[in-house]
Amino acid sequence: MYPESINNLIESFKFLPGIGEKTAERLAFAVLDLDEEQIDLFSSSINEAFEKIHNCSICNTLTDADLCFVCKDLSRNSNTLCVVEDSKTVFLFEKLGIFTGKYHVLEGLISPLDGINPEDIGLNKLLDRINSEKFEEIIFAFKPSIEGETTALYIKKILEGLNIKITRLASGVPIGADIEYVDSLTLERALNDRKNIE
Amino acid sequence: MYPESINNLIESFKFLPGIGEKTAERLAFAVLDLDEEQIDLFSSSINEAFEKIHNCSICNTLTDADLCFVCKDLSRNSNTLCVVEDSKTVFLFEKLGIFTGKYHVLEGLISPLDGINPEDIGLNKLLDRINSEKFEEIIFAFKPSIEGETTALYIKKILEGLNIKITRLASGVPIGADIEYVDSLTLERALNDRKNIE
Repeated sequence: MYPESINNLIESFKFLPGIGEKTAERLAFAVLDLDEEQIDLFSSSINEAFEKIHNCSICNTLTDADLCFVCKDLSRNSNTLCVVEDSKTVFLFEKLGIFTGKYHVLEGLISPLDGINPEDIGLNKLLDRINSEKFEEIIFAFKPSIEGETTALYIKKILEGLNIKITRLASGVPIGADIEYVDSLTLERALNDRKNIE
Repeated sequence: MYPESINNLIESFKFLPGIGEKTAERLAFAVLDLDEEQIDLFSSSINEAFEKIHNCSICNTLTDADLCFVCKDLSRNSNTLCVVEDSKTVFLFEKLGIFTGKYHVLEGLISPLDGINPEDIGLNKLLDRINSEKFEEIIFAFKPSIEGETTALYIKKILEGLNIKITRLASGVPIGADIEYVDSLTLERALNDRKNIE
């Protein structure tokens, strides 16, 4: 029923997670309203992202150069390494400007139920780096989940005996949240991790 | 901070209505996970939609040929014309298979507050067609709104004296809706347009 190129456009949007038939149709018709310059940018940026983007050779963050913008930056604090599960966390932290150390992006989190074992997440590259770069602290910034906990504990165990401080992000009640809407696991963690008021 | 091609991809998604910064970032990263075949289809369908899609020379429905699939189809009921505000309505009605007549797509609805006057919505093409094709009934399938009502009344006035039945979509309580959540204008219309139970 749709002309073929509209149909292809709808199918293309449906490749993206969270986009169903209705939304794909809405977005496809919106593309028809773009001007030539926008069309060129849209179409070429899809091709270029595929052709040019790859992982930083040191830390795995997505980049279009050999080294990512963090690894290239000699002014970063090189004593602290923040280990994350994907590049999105790096860009989020950088956008917020809340961390000045280095990053290392794993290839996912350990999740035996999904068939993702320790050898699948690029640990060797991380361990080689820890051995050569002599960090004083390693922060795990994974999402609070069984997979995140498992991965953090697994790596911590390997690093035992090295004189490195190992930390994770605090879990607890989000700022501004109503206590009654916070789930029980988070509340329990917040109670156990309670802090002195100074 | 983002590599340039990721940045361009995020900006491109933000061209589309309803897509803000966060969603654009999410979609851009999802594009990075597509395989080469998907990338090619996505990028080329954007270009092709721009290059090949235009309005049907008879009814204005979006098409990649001279005539759209409805105008090409000689088996359609040519006594009834359904006038709609955009091509999306045509594709929706055809998907549902609820109408067998012909369509005519206006270039929007009359909306003086937005500077859209009767001469801006392609009425001449519609009137020429009505004069030459001798329809028995014309159905206005606009969204129920001031603009929809204004446009329907304006065209009806022009057609006065021609022996053509002029109708519009029924308004009323949607099937399955809770009466208490239906807005007052809709309820009032549903009460005024009440139907005999037969």
